[in-house]
Order: sequence, then C-alpha cells, then structure tokens
Amino acid sequence: MEEMSKVNPRIMPGFVELLPADQLFFDQWIEKIKGVYESFGFVPMDTPVIELSEVLLAKIGEDTKKEIYRFERGDDDLALRFDLTVPLARYVAMNNPNLVFPFKRYQIGKSFRGERPQKGRFREFYQADIDILGNGSLGLVNDAEILALVVAVFERLDIGNFVLRVSNRKILGGLVKYLGYEKTLEEILRIVDKKEKVGEDKVKEMLLELKIENKTVDKLLDFLKLEGNNEEILDKLAIMGMGEEFDLGVAELREVYKYLKMMGVEEKRVRLDLEIVRGLSYYTGMVFETMIDNKNISGSVCSGGRYDDLAESFSKNSYPGVGASIGLTRLFSQLLSAGLIKSRKKTSADLAVISVGEEMGYTLEVVSKLRKMGLKVVYGGEKMKFTKKMDWANKMGIEVVIIVGEEEERKEMVTVKDMVTGKQEMVRVEDLKSHY
Amino acid sequence: MEEMSKVNPRIMPGFVELLPADQLFFDQWIEKIKGVYESFGFVPMDTPVIELSEVLLAKIGEDTKKEIYRFERGDDDLALRFDLTVPLARYVAMNNPNLVFPFKRYQIGKSFRGERPQKGRFREFYQADIDILGNGSLGLVNDAEILALVVAVFERLDIGNFVLRVSNRKILGGLVKYLGYEKTLEEILRIVDKKEKVGEDKVKEMLLELKIENKTVDKLLDFLKLEGNNEEILDKLAIMGMGEEFDLGVAELREVYKYLKMMGVEEKRVRLDLEIVRGLSYYTGMVFETMIDNKNISGSVCSGGRYDDLAESFSKNSYPGVGASIGLTRLFSQLLSAGLIKSRKKTSADLAVISVGEEMGYTLEVVSKLRKMGLKVVYGGEKMKFTKKMDWANKMGIEVVIIVGEEEERKEMVTVKDMVTGKQEMVRVEDLKSHY
Repeated sequence: MEEMSKVNPRIMPGFVELLPADQLFFDQWIEKIKGVYESFGFVPMDTPVIELSEVLLAKIGEDTKKEIYRFERGDDDLALRFDLTVPLARYVAMNNPNLVFPFKRYQIGKSFRGERPQKGRFREFYQADIDILGNGSLGLVNDAEILALVVAVFERLDIGNFVLRVSNRKILGGLVKYLGYEKTLEEILRIVDKKEKVGEDKVKEMLLELKIENKTVDKLLDFLKLEGNNEEILDKLAIMGMGEEFDLGVAELREVYKYLKMMGVEEKRVRLDLEIVRGLSYYTGMVFETMIDNKNISGSVCSGGRYDDLAESFSKNSYPGVGASIGLTRLFSQLLSAGLIKSRKKTSADLAVISVGEEMGYTLEVVSKLRKMGLKVVYGGEKMKFTKKMDWANKMGIEVVIIVGEEEERKEMVTVKDMVTGKQEMVRVEDLKSHY
Repeated sequence: MEEMSKVNPRIMPGFVELLPADQLFFDQWIEKIKGVYESFGFVPMDTPVIELSEVLLAKIGEDTKKEIYRFERGDDDLALRFDLTVPLARYVAMNNPNLVFPFKRYQIGKSFRGERPQKGRFREFYQADIDILGNGSLGLVNDAEILALVVAVFERLDIGNFVLRVSNRKILGGLVKYLGYEKTLEEILRIVDKKEKVGEDKVKEMLLELKIENKTVDKLLDFLKLEGNNEEILDKLAIMGMGEEFDLGVAELREVYKYLKMMGVEEKRVRLDLEIVRGLSYYTGMVFETMIDNKNISGSVCSGGRYDDLAESFSKNSYPGVGASIGLTRLFSQLLSAGLIKSRKKTSADLAVISVGEEMGYTLEVVSKLRKMGLKVVYGGEKMKFTKKMDWANKMGIEVVIIVGEEEERKEMVTVKDMVTGKQEMVRVEDLKSHY
C-alpha cells in the first residue's frame, strides 16, 4: 500500500471537545437543566445553525457583527447563529398563529462567535436559554417565574451557593433622566455595567468624562450603593420620588419580588441590587445576574431580563417577553479547569459483563437479559486473559463487574464482584435488579 | 418612533425547524435513542461543528467535497462537519492515550451538506451514530453488538415492523475477484448498490457496459438472488468455494449471525441479503441496511458496517471498527409528512394550574408545591376571564387542569379537572402525586 502523509489531528483554539468522563458529566448537566425547564412547562426549540445573514443580522451592533461567522454559498449570504435570541424572535414572527401565548420555550444549543480566543471566551459554546413571550402583553408574574426557574436550575446543578442580583432598568434609567442626562443614558448605563470589573474610581472618572457634574456623579454612585435588606431597599426606593419612570421601575421590582415570595423562593437567593443594568440595550424592565460563591467562577453565570418587543425587526405585532441565558460552556470549563468536575466513569454503563474464559453463549445471554431488565451494561467481549478483562473494567471506572464462567453457567447464576470492596458473590440474574 | 422596515422572517429550503408539539415528539425520540445507546454502555461524544478544512477533508470524495460548507476566517480555512465519522476518526487519533478500547461512543448531532434541496434531502440534518473502535484489533462480536443495538433502538422507537438486511462485503467482492473482474470491483459494487432503485434490467445493462461478459453478468445477478432462510443461505454459501476472500466473508457472516442468535435477537429482525454492499468505500466486512415496513418510509433508515482502519488519515495506529448511523431528520420528516407523528401537546407540562379569579398567593404556592413534588406544571398567570384560561389550557393539549379559587384556598385543597371526561373533584395537593 502506498504511504499516506498524515494530517495532524487537532481542533481550533476557542473550540471545546471533552473526554468521555467529562462529556458524560456535561450531558448530565444538560439532562438536569432540561428536567427543570420542563417541570415549568417550557417546550424545547431547535432552530437551524445556519440562517440567512439578512435575518440573523437584522438588528445587530457593529461589535457583534465583526464576530459573526458569515459566508456566501451560491447566491445566499449565510451566517451561523451567534445567540439563541434572534432565532427565537424570527421563529415567533414566523409561527405566531401556531403558538399558544404566553409562549414558554427553552433552547439548549451551540452559538458561534469568531472572537479572538482567550481564557473564558469560546468561539463555539452552549447556551441554555429560557424565554416567555406574550402576544401584545405579558404579566409581571412571568418575570418572577423566570427568576424562580433559574433558582431551581442552580439548586439542581448543586455547584455552590448562589444569589440572583436583581434590579429594574427603569429605576436607574428613570433616575438618570430625572437628573437631566437622558441624552447620555446609554453611555451611563454601559459605564455602570462595568463597575464591578473596573472599580468605582474608574467609573467616576468615565462619568466625569461625559461632562456630568461632580455632584451628580457622587449622587449616582451613592445611589448604586443603597444599602439594606430587600424589603428595606424597596421601602427606601418608594419614597425617593425621582420621577414617573423611576417610580414605575420601583413598583415593578416590588411586584416581581412579591411573586417570588409567593413562589416560596428563599430570601437568600435574591438580592435587589441597583448596580445591575446588563449590557444589552433591549432590556426595558427587570434585569438580573447570577453569581456563584466560588472563587473559580468569575462573573455572572446566568443573566437576563424583560424586554418590550422582541421581534420588532420581523413583525408589526409586539411580543414583550422575559428571559434568561446560562453560559454553559464557560461555566463548565471554569469548573473543569479548577478540578471541580470529578468524573471517573468512562462508560454509560453501571455494570460490565466479562467471561472467565472464551465462552460466549451463556455470557451473551446474560448481557441481553440484564439489558432487557433495564440495566446499563457494557460487554467486554475481546479475547484476552481474565486479569486483562478486569483491568479493562477497572480502567472504565466500573464499580460492579458481572463474571460468567463454567460454574456460573452450570448453576444458571452469575458472580457479582464489587470493585471497590473486592467482595464477590454468586446470584441469579433475575435477582440483580434489586441489587443495582 | 421611526418606522422600521421589516425583514421577512424565514429559514432556507433544506433546513428544518419544528413546531412545539412536533419538537417535543422529536426530543422524545432522541431521549429514547440515547437511553438504548447508554444501556449498551456507549459514551456520548460532542465534537465541534466547525473544524479545519484540512482535517475534515483529509480523505473525501469529490462528490461530497462539492457539498461541504467551507469558508475562510482570518487565516483559517474552515468547514462545517458533513458527517460524524471523520470527527470520530480525528478524535480517536488525538485522544488515543486517554481512551479505553474497545471504544464505544455515540454522537447525536447535526451534520451539514449544501446539497440542492429536494424531497428527503436536507442541508442540515441530525444523525445518531454509534461506533465501536478497537486499538489494533476488534472481535467480530462487536459487529453483532452494533446490529443488536440497532434492533433495540427500532423496537424502542416502535414505528413499524423492520428488518436488518445484512451481508459481508468480502462475499461479493471475493466473488467478483474470483471471476476475474478485480479491476472494476468498485464500479461493480456501486452498480449493485443501485439495484433496488433502478431495477435488475438496468443493472444488467450497466454491468454489460463495463465489458463484463453476458454469462458472468447473469451469474452475478443469480447469485444476488440466492434464496432461502438465513441458515440455508449460509449453508449454500459455505459450499460454493469462490476463493479465499469469499470464504472469509462467508465465515465472518456466519460468526456474526451466531452471536446475534446468542444475544437473543429475533430471527425476523435479520435477513442475510447479498445485494447489500453500501456505497461508502471504507467498508471492508459486515454491511447492513435497515428497512421499515411502511410505505411512507423509503430506503434504509439506518446503515453501517465494519471498516478496517478508520483514522488512517490521522494516525499510524490502526483502529478497526464497526458502526451504524440513523438518518434521524430524514426519518422524522417522512413520518411527519405522512401524518404519522401524532402529537397534540404544546407544553412539556402534564398539569396546568389556573386560578378562578385574580388571586395569586395561594395559586403560586400550589404551583411551587407541585413542582417540588416532581410534577411538570405550567402556570397560566395572565389576567383574563376564567373561560379564557380554560381555553388556554385546552389549546396547549393539557389533559388535567388544577383550578384554584376561594373555596379551594379556604379548605387548603385544589380542584382537579379532567379535560377529556370533564369530571372534576377537590383533593389535597399532597394527594395529587398518586393521581398523576
């Protein structure tokens, strides 16, 4: 045969691929998240990875635009989805008559952004999104439902203590307008959004650069630090009287908070925090971030909020909504690098079946029987020495091995070996179900 | 506000997106398939959608090459994966030291081919692949395990009677060589592969065009129609004596068949059929197709076979393997167009909770309690008339509605209404679990 030149097998920086044990763990996360999403009645959605650029880029900022994977094919100008929100807007505008509103959907899938790869930034990454969309209107109880759902997800994932920092954009927005700086509102919000990263001094400096007077800047910064427990913050806000929009924001925040209490969400899971504004300009009401109390996890792991009109690029109808997105790949990768994902099993199976010698008939019968009983069974059928077979099971992280030999066949039983304790016993196949 | 020009919300031909009820059904398929794959101990794999063209196109035919979505980004020549097999080969060559062999993995994910869209052809489609790879060698029992796994999957999906048509490439290949036509082997196999589609006469015509003598063509065509039950076919083949490769193929087929019987695979699920050769040139032993007895489903729904060396483009090591792939999108779409996917529920929830009036406190308490009990509950919190709320639950296909009003709150109970029978009764929340 002619000698082939080999291609170096590799994937690109910024792309993720897991080894089996970690992949199993990641998939269990997805299952858990799906389970919680579905317990709230959300339906799955699965939109194409490739869409027309005209559709995906209908309403996109210049910064994001640079990151899009975009290419031509025949006469089509195509792009890979860069988030799961634009496809949702397009889907709802397209399928409106066939949907029941409020439309509660989740989508767990990959998005693509051709960023310069760096720690914590990925070019292909999983997001787990939930949104509730109304047709024309949508009650504030849905904001609380999104928050309660996020709480339920992180309780289920069980990766550390966490808190949702919640605010309402109308509050800070209203205040800024009340103070007479409506024209620079977007810039001010963008600066405040950076406070945690750059620190208060830098924020002050940037605000002064916008030609906001010193006194007002101090007032703003003091306001962001409003102290007290949630009830106290709401009470303080209620008597401030900073204009109509401000008061509306406070009333909305109070109402959402009230529903959270009704839903039995624990007090420790929610912290009203006026610093939260979120970068995206489409948020118009409640906004939140989720912080996990773990030094290896930086920044918000799940953020979202309320928007007035999701599909305005595609439809004359108005679809107000509220949603949240978990940055799954980033979160998992942080835990993985910190050594906090401890997964040893390299098989989906709970049991491995091997034969003492090269006998196969009774062994295969046992394997099939166990699988029909609903057990997850991996069969080690390669011809090798018995000790090698045990090594194989051990390397896969299997804790219980079913051994089949002549004696077992004669007695129509199997030997069960606990790989942790080393204990073994002979049992009838039918009795295995009650053991494992 | 300025009037925006709207973008027409649409997806491209050849791309699939489902409405909620169908998506729920499709996701249930995926769950079932995953469940069966995992009951055989296969581990999940999830490779990037985007890879370097150099890697993905390392060993690809010109026909497929034309179909690849390929584009440049900075200095990188990129492509979207067009199957799940090349990524598997690359993964195994890359991660070899960290894998346990035989390596049994599944991958359920999308592949991309920019074909001219036509009925039954998709540009973005789900495949559900399984493969078992050996490091240097791999026993024939694995061929049987792949077939048994495919049988288990289609029994679980329960979409009609089905049969796996199984052969071994060495048999027809050996015969062709024995007859002296080794040089045109690839062409002959490609023609035989088309027999079902174009008919015997056309196959004869094409074979004659290859300058194979009439007598030999007739001999080949007769051979393909070898009749009898599986045992009879094996017995007939055993005494034919058409050369070493032919006999090896027969022996392999007999051995794989023997393991299938040991595994308890029903006779009706397997038909030895010498016409099966599969188009892909990398198959070297067992090959199979899966036919469903349903006039709406055309062609094979799951195919695969044995190959000698999967990763030869990437590695000097040899990884013989055996695998199968289900064309999920194509299969689902055929059943959908035929009206055979009957799904009415537009929510993941089993229960909907609504309040008689606008009361929310006790209602939200009930919702949370039910979810904590592990039930899937959708909450209808929009302010509207009671009959509208019932309409909403009905439109979602919910069969059981939990109604909460003043009396229910006073008694600390809820009313359960069966939407099918119309019957309703008042029960304690704690007692609901035993009902649903």
